[in-house]
Amino acid sequence: MKIIGIDPGTNFTGYGILSFENNEFKYTNSGVIALSKNFNMPERLKIIYSELNNIIKTHKPDVVVIETAFYDKNVQSTLKIGYARGVAMLVSANNNILAEEYSPREIKKAVVGNGSASKQQVQYMIKSTLGLKRKMKFDESDSLAVAMCYALRNKTKKNKIKNWKSFVQQNPDRIVKQ
Amino acid sequence: MKIIGIDPGTNFTGYGILSFENNEFKYTNSGVIALSKNFNMPERLKIIYSELNNIIKTHKPDVVVIETAFYDKNVQSTLKIGYARGVAMLVSANNNILAEEYSPREIKKAVVGNGSASKQQVQYMIKSTLGLKRKMKFDESDSLAVAMCYALRNKTKKNKIKNWKSFVQQNPDRIVKQ
Repeated sequence: MKIIGIDPGTNFTGYGILSFENNEFKYTNSGVIALSKNFNMPERLKIIYSELNNIIKTHKPDVVVIETAFYDKNVQSTLKIGYARGVAMLVSANNNILAEEYSPREIKKAVVGNGSASKQQVQYMIKSTLGLKRKMKFDESDSLAVAMCYALRNKTKKNKIKNWKSFVQQNPDRIVKQ
Repeated sequence: MKIIGIDPGTNFTGYGILSFENNEFKYTNSGVIALSKNFNMPERLKIIYSELNNIIKTHKPDVVVIETAFYDKNVQSTLKIGYARGVAMLVSANNNILAEEYSPREIKKAVVGNGSASKQQVQYMIKSTLGLKRKMKFDESDSLAVAMCYALRNKTKKNKIKNWKSFVQQNPDRIVKQ
């Protein structure tokens, strides 16, 4: 399963693509779309749309996962996050790809095991899990964390054992046959 | 000059197109894009984008004018307004059309002469100015009001007299020649 995580913003939009097969993560690509202050809002949204669209057309992820908004007390900031998130959702819909979302707390809990972990801790975990050594912006590591969160949460869901029948189906090697 | 006004929302997005030539308004088209509650947010944004894009490609307005957000105390509502506005800005940018914006207060002041006018008053003024008699939703009359506001505000700007020279140029009939 190939997953793209997006951390949308009108100054920096981070994206991170990874695949998750047989309980193993494999890094594909990640980066930051930096929006110049010289551009007005419609121009910035146009760049975010076109860049994300190119990335999705190139890497063909199975699912788009977007970080839910950080709610700012400043209404203008909340609106701007809304613009960028709206564009990210639109890109996924226009490419007929499912869009999911997780809150920063859920993401940190899934990736680091602590819902109030720092961005540094998240980045450390991302780098060590994916074997990345280069410097990266938090927008980039956060996006990879969003993608990782989706994989881990869905793995848990899939493996959740509801009854003995499903346990037997999922664990044929643990059944003693007499 | 042909103007499209947009009142963006994720339940109803209103649009209204009119032209303004020689101090006269002419109605072109208007309506409401109604978004079913059965659709999730990315699907709704996809519909808003594609409908607005079709309308703009059909009517080729010179400018897109968007009503600035009504700031809701509820952060979720503010975010949703952000999604719809972001998509409206993106449509204008992707069609290389200038996007302008006015606040509800500026719009009411320009159209009715009173910044705290009711939606009923705005609709009454819009209908009588454009000679429309049919029933319409407030989202529709509001969008026509946004477009009308742009025309009136820019007319004022153009006609503003800076000095005697420009007054003479703008009012040749008021000059007494001896």
